[in-house]
Amino acid sequence: MKSPGHRDVEIDALRDAGNTRRRDAIAVEEPLEIRLIKAGTTDNGGTGRALSITMRTPGNDSELALGFLHGEGIIAAPRDVVAVEPCGPSGNVVRVTVRADLAFDAERLARNFYTTSSCGVCGKASIDAITAAAGRRDVGARDFAVRESVLRALPDKLRASQTEFAETGGVHAVGLFTAGGEFVASREDVGRHNAMDKLVGSSLRDGSLPWSERVVLLSGRASFELLQKAMMAGAPVVAAIGAPSSLAVELAEAVGITLIAFVRAGGCNVYTHAARVRPRGNS
Amino acid sequence: MKSPGHRDVEIDALRDAGNTRRRDAIAVEEPLEIRLIKAGTTDNGGTGRALSITMRTPGNDSELALGFLHGEGIIAAPRDVVAVEPCGPSGNVVRVTVRADLAFDAERLARNFYTTSSCGVCGKASIDAITAAAGRRDVGARDFAVRESVLRALPDKLRASQTEFAETGGVHAVGLFTAGGEFVASREDVGRHNAMDKLVGSSLRDGSLPWSERVVLLSGRASFELLQKAMMAGAPVVAAIGAPSSLAVELAEAVGITLIAFVRAGGCNVYTHAARVRPRGNS
Repeated sequence: MKSPGHRDVEIDALRDAGNTRRRDAIAVEEPLEIRLIKAGTTDNGGTGRALSITMRTPGNDSELALGFLHGEGIIAAPRDVVAVEPCGPSGNVVRVTVRADLAFDAERLARNFYTTSSCGVCGKASIDAITAAAGRRDVGARDFAVRESVLRALPDKLRASQTEFAETGGVHAVGLFTAGGEFVASREDVGRHNAMDKLVGSSLRDGSLPWSERVVLLSGRASFELLQKAMMAGAPVVAAIGAPSSLAVELAEAVGITLIAFVRAGGCNVYTHAARVRPRGNS
Repeated sequence: MKSPGHRDVEIDALRDAGNTRRRDAIAVEEPLEIRLIKAGTTDNGGTGRALSITMRTPGNDSELALGFLHGEGIIAAPRDVVAVEPCGPSGNVVRVTVRADLAFDAERLARNFYTTSSCGVCGKASIDAITAAAGRRDVGARDFAVRESVLRALPDKLRASQTEFAETGGVHAVGLFTAGGEFVASREDVGRHNAMDKLVGSSLRDGSLPWSERVVLLSGRASFELLQKAMMAGAPVVAAIGAPSSLAVELAEAVGITLIAFVRAGGCNVYTHAARVRPRGNS
């Protein structure tokens, strides 16, 4: 289901050249509720359990729901999913029906991830909790590599794919590329976590997870949450146009992701597992 | 309690001029758990109820907790708060003790805001729910106004206050200014909602809420959530350096906030309640 990601409003544009009343496009932000139910059950009269409400840009809602559930470790493959469908009249609820014998920790969904008995609430506990939930995966093939020149060219390629950003200047994007820099797919959203969920969901749906031989590019900054989702998707290389946070760097270090940030035509910074980046002149 | 908002890591900086191994500052991101307890009770052995975990930049944690509770409509004034203090050994838990007779809707905290019986989950329901929770407040004095020339100068003033951004390039900021453009205060965080909560919390603490005669400037985009917090703080004018979302515009329109976005030296766009902006030549 495709919805327009933007709509027009009347604005007063105040400029040096003069002030004008005109129409301008803004990015649409609406709530989306993600509900989960096991096949063959009638939990909550068949509507299932509400897991999350996120403020998102409408469009690719099924992918968003699938990607969210993948990032939380609830589903791992297309076979885990029986149906994904709108629920109710608003267009802002998606219900995911999973196979009846799918094992997941419903309690873990209800509580927070970030507490351990050893240190209480801390960054290390956050990393331990999600790597434990994911079966302590080490991400990506050791011999996967990407050339620095390829990395530097990615921001322009992502920008070229961003139809909603071009209209509104108000959405994030996440892009997927081959090691050679070929564009594979991208998704946009007012929320950067939603853009990532949509992209993961689209790959889950078409059977192209894990992203073992893919480079992920973030239009903004690299946070813990985005690295968590990339880790679950098995991405060996995550690049960001913006800055990284400390916990993003720590998680990337811990799980074997090559994290690159401040990526632009003139250069980039490599924060972790630099062996996967081939500097210019070395390739 | 002040903590450094950044720390140094080793990076490989790949540039046209050559590649170097050097130290670089990154913004710290750590979880913060906000707990709430009523004075004189021993809920959860005296630790209270966990309301929220947010990924934040350490520092001004008490302000963050107070601002968060204010944005959710739980506390409204300093007299509602008996104590705000760290809880446990991690430094990542803050417990807020509120007065014993404070009335708040504990159930509302546990459920989502965004559903009504009329339309289910939708933007209008989101707006109705928060304006109802806030007592349908109409924000700001009608005669408060700000000159366009003042608005255009705000981004440089906010940037000048951003010590952590200068170090890391990786944090958002929210700034508070007088109608004349005088800097009042600002806060920074990896999460823009946290930066807003910290700023609201600092004003709550020093008794300077509501922001009836203040201009709020956001370093990034204007989302529904940020407008919600600004509305609760009583801000008549919200300006953003980035783009606005549709639901931010709708909420601003509904509650009487003047929303301005894409603010820069060369101009700005006014989305709602333009009467509070005095264009150049009209002042």
